[in-house]
Amino acid sequence: MAQKFSKKLNVQLLAETLLAFGIEHIVLSPGSRNGALSTHFTHHPHFKTYSIVDERSAGFVALGMAQQIRKPVVLCCTSGSAAANYYPAVTEAFYQNIPLIVLTADRPEHLVDNFDGQTIRQKNLFELHSYHNTQLSEDESTEILTDNLGLIKKTIKSCMHDFGPVHINMPFSEPLYEFQNTIDIQFDKFEIPEKQNIEFDFNEFSTIWNSVEKKLILVGMQFPDDKLNRLLSELADDDSVVVLTETTSNLYSQRFFNKIDQVIFPLNETDLEKLRPDLLITIGQNVISKKIKSFIRTHKPQFHWHLDEFWQPDTYQCLTNEIKINPVKFIEEFNLKVQKKESNYYKIWNEIRNSHQTKHDEFLQKTAFSDLTVFEELIKTYPENWQIHYGNSSGIRYAQLFDHNSSNEIFCNRGTSGIDGSTSTSIGAAIASQKPTVMVTGDISFFYDSNALWNNYIPKNFRIIIINNGGGNIFKIIPGPENSGVVESVFETRHHLTAENLAKMFGFEYENVNNLEDLKLSLEEFYLQSEKPKILEINTSIIENAQIQRDYFNFLKL
Amino acid sequence: MAQKFSKKLNVQLLAETLLAFGIEHIVLSPGSRNGALSTHFTHHPHFKTYSIVDERSAGFVALGMAQQIRKPVVLCCTSGSAAANYYPAVTEAFYQNIPLIVLTADRPEHLVDNFDGQTIRQKNLFELHSYHNTQLSEDESTEILTDNLGLIKKTIKSCMHDFGPVHINMPFSEPLYEFQNTIDIQFDKFEIPEKQNIEFDFNEFSTIWNSVEKKLILVGMQFPDDKLNRLLSELADDDSVVVLTETTSNLYSQRFFNKIDQVIFPLNETDLEKLRPDLLITIGQNVISKKIKSFIRTHKPQFHWHLDEFWQPDTYQCLTNEIKINPVKFIEEFNLKVQKKESNYYKIWNEIRNSHQTKHDEFLQKTAFSDLTVFEELIKTYPENWQIHYGNSSGIRYAQLFDHNSSNEIFCNRGTSGIDGSTSTSIGAAIASQKPTVMVTGDISFFYDSNALWNNYIPKNFRIIIINNGGGNIFKIIPGPENSGVVESVFETRHHLTAENLAKMFGFEYENVNNLEDLKLSLEEFYLQSEKPKILEINTSIIENAQIQRDYFNFLKL
Repeated sequence: MAQKFSKKLNVQLLAETLLAFGIEHIVLSPGSRNGALSTHFTHHPHFKTYSIVDERSAGFVALGMAQQIRKPVVLCCTSGSAAANYYPAVTEAFYQNIPLIVLTADRPEHLVDNFDGQTIRQKNLFELHSYHNTQLSEDESTEILTDNLGLIKKTIKSCMHDFGPVHINMPFSEPLYEFQNTIDIQFDKFEIPEKQNIEFDFNEFSTIWNSVEKKLILVGMQFPDDKLNRLLSELADDDSVVVLTETTSNLYSQRFFNKIDQVIFPLNETDLEKLRPDLLITIGQNVISKKIKSFIRTHKPQFHWHLDEFWQPDTYQCLTNEIKINPVKFIEEFNLKVQKKESNYYKIWNEIRNSHQTKHDEFLQKTAFSDLTVFEELIKTYPENWQIHYGNSSGIRYAQLFDHNSSNEIFCNRGTSGIDGSTSTSIGAAIASQKPTVMVTGDISFFYDSNALWNNYIPKNFRIIIINNGGGNIFKIIPGPENSGVVESVFETRHHLTAENLAKMFGFEYENVNNLEDLKLSLEEFYLQSEKPKILEINTSIIENAQIQRDYFNFLKL
Repeated sequence: MAQKFSKKLNVQLLAETLLAFGIEHIVLSPGSRNGALSTHFTHHPHFKTYSIVDERSAGFVALGMAQQIRKPVVLCCTSGSAAANYYPAVTEAFYQNIPLIVLTADRPEHLVDNFDGQTIRQKNLFELHSYHNTQLSEDESTEILTDNLGLIKKTIKSCMHDFGPVHINMPFSEPLYEFQNTIDIQFDKFEIPEKQNIEFDFNEFSTIWNSVEKKLILVGMQFPDDKLNRLLSELADDDSVVVLTETTSNLYSQRFFNKIDQVIFPLNETDLEKLRPDLLITIGQNVISKKIKSFIRTHKPQFHWHLDEFWQPDTYQCLTNEIKINPVKFIEEFNLKVQKKESNYYKIWNEIRNSHQTKHDEFLQKTAFSDLTVFEELIKTYPENWQIHYGNSSGIRYAQLFDHNSSNEIFCNRGTSGIDGSTSTSIGAAIASQKPTVMVTGDISFFYDSNALWNNYIPKNFRIIIINNGGGNIFKIIPGPENSGVVESVFETRHHLTAENLAKMFGFEYENVNNLEDLKLSLEEFYLQSEKPKILEINTSIIENAQIQRDYFNFLKL
């Protein structure tokens, strides 16, 4: 390929600084003002570029990529409202701590608010949901280039330390398209200094731990972490310890309670009171189960520690200690200082679990084709080592009711729990992880993000499963709207859309089933190698899915 | 319909305040947190509600509606990233001065940044691109309700005075869904006080006007305005006055020069110098022609006045007077004070126009099927009194080369010139204006905003014409990228997509043509009454459209 590098020294400076920090994935959206950047990145042998038209989808694709490689991914767009389309993905990245570098080309600053084309107030556009924001100067004097280098390095360091979105705004004057065959700027590798961990008085914590009989560890969303899994298993080998995990915790042990709602949803106040912890330790990010949040808020522990290097949220309104440290580092040292304690805490939880599991099995056995049984079937048949992405919001809630195989890494955009970019995220993840990936989504979430399919990089082994119940069933499931008497007209989004035409348009194989037998047959072939990615649409729209879910929880209570 | 009004007094307060200001159109996106609002608005006999799932599209639909009715339209969504999806439409509304009230339901503030579901920092989210921002309190004490009323009134007044987007953030605690059959709050009509116009010394301006021989009036984008059209025609009846208009100016007179690029693009420096004005008066918003901007910047007038009640941009870097007044009010008085002046300024312009028009006709006659001739054919055959919406960006640029019928009102999102919501905007406009409407768009812009079609309110007489040249031809047309040698890989967005499957999916009639004869045949039927809205896709992808456009301008030079 012809080597066409931008003559603009600031473009070269930026590109070489990214490389010196080991950042090489660039998701570009086509445009004119970012032409120097796109051309430079595309021709540079050390960058991997992906061109995606719709910036909203591009934002989530980059998010999915960065989620998997655990390193910053660059998003690059032209000037004007293009950048505003990144906003949904930026909020998700902000709360999920996914490192994105948003690089927006801009008109020279004096043209802002002067009726120039494709010009908005880009400077600090993402300020509320980003960890650092800067604007470079166009000047090419040594002094300014040195300043710009400082700004770029500071921004990238923030992205890598705070692990989240940052924004670099780059004004460009014409001529935008002057190229040369050499790069005039070169750097050695830049090091990111290790974050200094705060010193803790572990004795204070171990004393509390050793003194109480009911310790509850609740893990929210987090990237799969074998070491944490092992350390928590060690800690959980103690009758006074109960570990609650969710689908998105990516933790597996016989000892862990991985279906929280099944255990606590059916309980009355007397039973719940028995489960009240003395000490609550939380790890990871957003917890899906509303029931556990409300249980802890109404049955507050004496102590609540949150182990997290980024956030110290008081989710349960009882936080006593902010422990700003990587949980692995904390527990590693902590495990050496604590003792097991006699207690029936685990036993109480476990008996409830077993009894509800029996009920669960019994209910499922007699339940016909519906969203609930569809999820049971899907989760049972995920191939080993596939990555599973769930859409918001009923998808991930159903998934919480079943055991997943520990070889299946699970992801869901629970940072903001939006339906706006789940499919795009899963495609980004599939591209970057190079693992076979299936996206399991509801219909509304799928149609919302249908531009996700407008993507030239979708691997052949990528799969989408749509549970199409005709729209917005979540509003029948969460308590409240059903009583308004206007679910259909106001909350739900009834439709007769299917994904068939989109599959045709974007070159996916497509199959549609509407009963359990056909679903089983389809799944036998669905994950096999194929020439194209595939969509399987499961139509459950004539089923009273919401009623079945209510019956399920009522049955557990019996 | 059952009357189910929210028990929440703040919901009632907001709704009745909107009505007291005469605001009744509400574009809702389904969600749980905004359930009290959606239910209340939907059941209230005085509101017209529209439920649209994708907030990005919903934002532009509301923008199209408000553009037509010239009154605020409310956008209402749930908490979390939903609001961020409004951002592109908010930027367009900000620069185009279209009154939108963005009403976002939120979690109670103490849950922000605390790992709660669907929670982002919504307060002041749109601060950079809105005219007023407020957050209401949930409290229902008389004192707080009075405060809230003050905040709501101030926000709505700003929306109506500044004519642009404002934001009301409304936190909601549970229970969200408690309803009653009565409304406890009632208001009489609220008046918006007239804006006080600044006093001008008209003598100062008329003295300058009367003293100079070359007066150029350049009108950018603006809503059709018969009175302005008449006043400008009066002013233009003077040999020292030249009025330049664009497609989006919606002004028509034999005396006006409505195809700027055709006149000035082919000129050399000697000719251009003859066109240099002494006085430039600009009216309206963003001007599409890059050539006229660059001409004025390099041939600056002695005086430049901008007549505008909202913005005073120095687009041409020579602004001498900010005249913050409605142009109609200014010219009405101004016309009484000015005299005609002998000059050959109009004549010089007109001779160039006539000579280039002859060339234009000659070129078009010998040009085969291509984007250029397609636009000629389309514009010739628009039915009387239809509204025409153009997509960005090559669509509107081609349209500038042809005469439009004065009965066709023309719109294009030139506030930010984004491709993100043109189709949605045109659908909103069609719904609100109830006029037959055709959207003329390029393929990239159409596919970008394909969720526009996911809309239950599209009138049967709505039409879409897609000029599908296979993607991103604009980057071959604007100077620069063509020389980078990477147009195909970096700038363009080559694809083989057609709209056929989307048409099937969303219930549009669909036709595809790829030559002029078929196009003419199709157009004979295309605008006739039909049971469904229609899409006509014109495939020009094998044509060297960019080359033809270059040849066109070169030919005008000969």
